[in-house]
Amino acid sequence: MNIESFFPKDIKTALEKNPPGAWMSAVPDGCIRLNSGYPATGLVPAAEIKSASARLLDEEKDLPLHYLGSPRIDKLKEQIQERLGSRGMHAESDELLITAGACQAIDLIARILLDAQAVVAVEAPTYMEALEVFQNYTSQIISIPIDDKGLETEQLETVLAERKKNGLTLPRLVYTIPNFQNPTGTTMSSDRREHLLALSKTYDFLILEDDAYGELSFGEIPQTLKAMDTDDRVLHVGSLSKVVAPGMRIGWIAGSSQFIPSLAWFKKDLDHPFVQSIMAAYLEQVNLEQRTKQLKDKYSEKCTRLINALEQYLSDQASWYVPEGGYFVWVKIPGVNTTNMLPYALNAGVAYVPGQYFFMNQEEGTEYLRLSFSYADEREIEKGVQILGEVVKETL
Amino acid sequence: MNIESFFPKDIKTALEKNPPGAWMSAVPDGCIRLNSGYPATGLVPAAEIKSASARLLDEEKDLPLHYLGSPRIDKLKEQIQERLGSRGMHAESDELLITAGACQAIDLIARILLDAQAVVAVEAPTYMEALEVFQNYTSQIISIPIDDKGLETEQLETVLAERKKNGLTLPRLVYTIPNFQNPTGTTMSSDRREHLLALSKTYDFLILEDDAYGELSFGEIPQTLKAMDTDDRVLHVGSLSKVVAPGMRIGWIAGSSQFIPSLAWFKKDLDHPFVQSIMAAYLEQVNLEQRTKQLKDKYSEKCTRLINALEQYLSDQASWYVPEGGYFVWVKIPGVNTTNMLPYALNAGVAYVPGQYFFMNQEEGTEYLRLSFSYADEREIEKGVQILGEVVKETL
Repeated sequence: MNIESFFPKDIKTALEKNPPGAWMSAVPDGCIRLNSGYPATGLVPAAEIKSASARLLDEEKDLPLHYLGSPRIDKLKEQIQERLGSRGMHAESDELLITAGACQAIDLIARILLDAQAVVAVEAPTYMEALEVFQNYTSQIISIPIDDKGLETEQLETVLAERKKNGLTLPRLVYTIPNFQNPTGTTMSSDRREHLLALSKTYDFLILEDDAYGELSFGEIPQTLKAMDTDDRVLHVGSLSKVVAPGMRIGWIAGSSQFIPSLAWFKKDLDHPFVQSIMAAYLEQVNLEQRTKQLKDKYSEKCTRLINALEQYLSDQASWYVPEGGYFVWVKIPGVNTTNMLPYALNAGVAYVPGQYFFMNQEEGTEYLRLSFSYADEREIEKGVQILGEVVKETL
Repeated sequence: MNIESFFPKDIKTALEKNPPGAWMSAVPDGCIRLNSGYPATGLVPAAEIKSASARLLDEEKDLPLHYLGSPRIDKLKEQIQERLGSRGMHAESDELLITAGACQAIDLIARILLDAQAVVAVEAPTYMEALEVFQNYTSQIISIPIDDKGLETEQLETVLAERKKNGLTLPRLVYTIPNFQNPTGTTMSSDRREHLLALSKTYDFLILEDDAYGELSFGEIPQTLKAMDTDDRVLHVGSLSKVVAPGMRIGWIAGSSQFIPSLAWFKKDLDHPFVQSIMAAYLEQVNLEQRTKQLKDKYSEKCTRLINALEQYLSDQASWYVPEGGYFVWVKIPGVNTTNMLPYALNAGVAYVPGQYFFMNQEEGTEYLRLSFSYADEREIEKGVQILGEVVKETL
């Protein structure tokens, strides 16, 4: 039997265009992981989560282990509503959906909004897993460049005007990571945020605001598009993966009540009550504001250490953007193909993510690479960049 | 802005045909829940799961809380492979995918196989949530009746032959619950299993075998379609929801290695490493064979109690099928509209699921209702059926 024949055409195309997780290169043991967008080991509250789950099960017995989970899940929603409120975002209960991390949030939005006819606009470069998700639904993905002020909304406007003039389908969705963008670390300027929101009305599209890193600002926390949105056009996606623990997969979508119930409908059977209950119990016993502040200080130090190491070991060969938050530094090394260089780097003992995977047109990314300062410790960061410097010099 | 205009046509149709969870009627407090397909409170191992998660986090610290979770997740897969093996099902690592419960498994399979052009054949009646999931992808769903020997494969063959003769699209997928079916409690005979597998070759379709209840057999555990499959046509879906805890959402798909990687691809970002790690740690410390045996004895007692109560309070008004496993008893009450009767039953203090929700053509289900003996305790079961008997007599 030829099982291939069972795949609908779109699925086949998606799978072919999209070889699963090609960007996740196997990292040899002992290799310094400047590729991983994970929180640092020491910064995940394992002991607190242990006590939270113990307390939860002592207090509620089997309740959190049933389909509906603990009544605390409603509290989790309230806790997230408070967090959003503290950043100027108002979400009623029917305007907020808890998801299995930001990735499920993006997938659910794509699932509701996108079909093979739909057009999506994304930043170039952008979060590679979001690209993978969108490509599962449509092949019509438009890339709009990004600079040190974030998404180039002027360029977006030009593209939209062009498409309108030529009677081409206009994007239904624009995907952006306005704060400490993955991979570039850039933050969108206020003017461009205003401009993007204005364009969303003129050209009638929705905005998927991925704010996974927004709270990890070394300074002021930037205002979100959601907080500036007066026309219910922003679907704001957030997550506790970076400030608590990624493995618990707690994220959310805040948006119009015209959307959230439909998103909930597609999600309902993919729910995960037990971890939501544990997270709720954990949030009861922690001061998340304080915790976030500690994380910011820690990541700020690590970022500085990475930047200093780049100055020391790569200043003649490379250039980079200095982020004001998040996890990542985006490095350009003219004359180097970062994909071809990776095996040598891994062999020498340092891992990074080649730039090509962050672009729809991968050619655009060959001279770039993404370094993460979140996971490795200070000593490793410095050592890793030193090794990278040597590999680059051998390559050039 | 009219947000409706953003929904693709198929999504809109799905949402309209499919008002979210209509079958989940709000059950007043104190009402006896003969509607819930949940494990009994006392039968969920809260204390063991508490100690398992504590041990996990003591031994592995933050490891299970990261994206990749604990190395134990590989063990979980091995533990499931062993369970499958003990029932004559062989699955290599690339033939098994762990999912967030059976529902995510069904959703992933639908996502890979179904588009608006695809035809699915289901049992009538069948698991209402599976119907909801399929309707999210296609409106072409064929119902094949079920009797006390399970899916009427002769009827299926007639329909297939008809469609072929008339040049109509043939089903790409047949969804069946061969063991202790939800809602009827019936089990498919060996002859029909052979017949179904033969038809799958003749008419080139795949079989989604939903075996959520297979291990909860009061007697011999029936052989699965997967164990009889010689042509890689069966996608076998199982779950630990019924034998451990539904809220942990641990299920799986065992099937051809031509499929599993694609299913994994669509799932990858919807993973849930922490609970998988906890489940793996729990399974290390429990004898699941023994536990399953205890559950079977317990549910067998509760089933007997329900059947006896039906004999005592409804023998003149109703008929039912006596199941040999699972959670459910399917009751027919001629001359009663079970949907219209529900408010009176809830008001009198007992909850059930009206039959209509288990059928594509809901008219077929109006005289039926599903009772569950899994959640309520013995005393409640007896009391609940007594109340139901009174409500029925008032209704007739």
